[in-house]
Amino acid sequence: MKAVVFDEKLHLSSKDPEPVPEKGEALVRVLLAGICNTDLEIVRGYMGYKGVLGHEFVGVVIQAPKGSEHLSGERVVGEINLYCGKCAYCMGGMRSHCPDRSVLGIMNKDGAMAEYVTLPVNLLHEFPDIINTDEAVFIEPLAAAFQVLEQVEFVEGDRVLVMGDGKLGLLIALVLKEFTQAEVTLLGHHEDKMEIAGAKGVKTWLSSKGRPDAPYDFVVEATGTAEGFQQALSLLRPRGAVILKSTVAQWAKLNLTAIVINELTVIGSRCGPFEPAIKALAGKKINVCSLISATYPIDKAEEAFKHAQQKGVMKVLLDLGA
Amino acid sequence: MKAVVFDEKLHLSSKDPEPVPEKGEALVRVLLAGICNTDLEIVRGYMGYKGVLGHEFVGVVIQAPKGSEHLSGERVVGEINLYCGKCAYCMGGMRSHCPDRSVLGIMNKDGAMAEYVTLPVNLLHEFPDIINTDEAVFIEPLAAAFQVLEQVEFVEGDRVLVMGDGKLGLLIALVLKEFTQAEVTLLGHHEDKMEIAGAKGVKTWLSSKGRPDAPYDFVVEATGTAEGFQQALSLLRPRGAVILKSTVAQWAKLNLTAIVINELTVIGSRCGPFEPAIKALAGKKINVCSLISATYPIDKAEEAFKHAQQKGVMKVLLDLGA
Repeated sequence: MKAVVFDEKLHLSSKDPEPVPEKGEALVRVLLAGICNTDLEIVRGYMGYKGVLGHEFVGVVIQAPKGSEHLSGERVVGEINLYCGKCAYCMGGMRSHCPDRSVLGIMNKDGAMAEYVTLPVNLLHEFPDIINTDEAVFIEPLAAAFQVLEQVEFVEGDRVLVMGDGKLGLLIALVLKEFTQAEVTLLGHHEDKMEIAGAKGVKTWLSSKGRPDAPYDFVVEATGTAEGFQQALSLLRPRGAVILKSTVAQWAKLNLTAIVINELTVIGSRCGPFEPAIKALAGKKINVCSLISATYPIDKAEEAFKHAQQKGVMKVLLDLGA
Repeated sequence: MKAVVFDEKLHLSSKDPEPVPEKGEALVRVLLAGICNTDLEIVRGYMGYKGVLGHEFVGVVIQAPKGSEHLSGERVVGEINLYCGKCAYCMGGMRSHCPDRSVLGIMNKDGAMAEYVTLPVNLLHEFPDIINTDEAVFIEPLAAAFQVLEQVEFVEGDRVLVMGDGKLGLLIALVLKEFTQAEVTLLGHHEDKMEIAGAKGVKTWLSSKGRPDAPYDFVVEATGTAEGFQQALSLLRPRGAVILKSTVAQWAKLNLTAIVINELTVIGSRCGPFEPAIKALAGKKINVCSLISATYPIDKAEEAFKHAQQKGVMKVLLDLGA
């Protein structure tokens, strides 16, 4: 089958055999896959992963294991952490942190930028017909945005700054605006993206305007840079919190004095719950279509990655059926 | 009066006039003052402070303002953050973070390494006769240790690692052992200090033994080094927390990836509540006498600072009455 493989370099392969579902797994024909910043980091060699890329996808179940036959023929999206289900973390409600996990397209599990992918059925989520396939590919990143609401209780009047107007920053700003009573400001440097957020009532602050109107009660760091984290510390009120979303796979010179003197909290935040993301899309509460920059057929995957790497580009999709 | 002054360099001065209490302030004759790591950082020039040093002290009130006459002749210790009392932070229970504050011996307020010091009476705390003066000088640093309990709720079975067997690390380990149900381990490299903690039931791990027995649910970082913080991140379970106590006034190369991937929390922690510290000493729950390395008369202040700067030395006191 065709697959987008990273193996020291990115290339389209047609040699990979169709994956064979293991016990409890479904075989899924992929319709669409999204290129995420993590994919771009993998391609830069940061994560040490080799194999089929892709963890944001929409597909159709073509073979379901016994007991899950109702999934056959349904469109699904998938959670990405394949957990053991037996360890203390799994039993304690922290499956996404299972130490024996593999991660779809990121760690020890071939990903979804391929004609077919397999996943355990308990990681698959059906979704309502009202969500079109283009929208559904955003369920996984939107879930990551909703994770912020799982970790922090925002109350009316909280001043929240979302730093970074990339895909994740925009989704987080839109989610916070729609689902909390906080006053949400997006900090970024792309006027077009700021307009998308502004149209939904998010306050915007172009970085060219200088230092934002600090202090904030919360800063969500989604710039993907260490400098962003350092700036976040300087924009918080005493006892404020940074929610750190960026996986910056780099060493950088930092000064943490402000964390102690101002008794700040830093909260790391990663994958999130699919249910509220599906509900938000089904209820048309979050408009993700404006976040799609381009769609490429899988045969042009390398071109698609080049496009996704350009500054200011938002979501680039790979159409597996095209 | 005699005073220990930092003014580009550390020196004993006898030219400073006795301070004159402002409205609401008491005049206190200092009995004992402790040398803290923050004082050592000031002397290294990190904090930009100039003036009389000292924020850990015990004294006797010799002049109290109207309405507080009952304090006259009493031994007292003092909180160090002189707040405005009117701003949103002060009104919201965050007086130690008042943006207009001065800080005794640290920022815009002459400190207590002098024959006399003034402080607002609402910052002064009397304490029971059963606490001797040597012990009382530990109330301020012990309060900083108790701040950890204000910020984190430890439950039975929690595995807590305290990194750093300096004065603060030791106090924190002793407080956690005495006042929580957690399993407390102290990591350090001084056998004599480990013995002090070990005698109280704290588990100990000499750093020469290699990597501690991770993962921990909580790590309290009190090494005063950026390397300590980086190591703390690597010793936590997913969704574990670092309580950051060290004010490391330095830029250092750090990698924060683990915070996001393991969804760790970092909690900055500074000054703490005096009441539990006084109660712990009055109840003989924490033995601080073994933490005193030496006592010097104020005339030998420079020698005392040299002593305090040596590796492995714990609390060095200045006796103002000697």
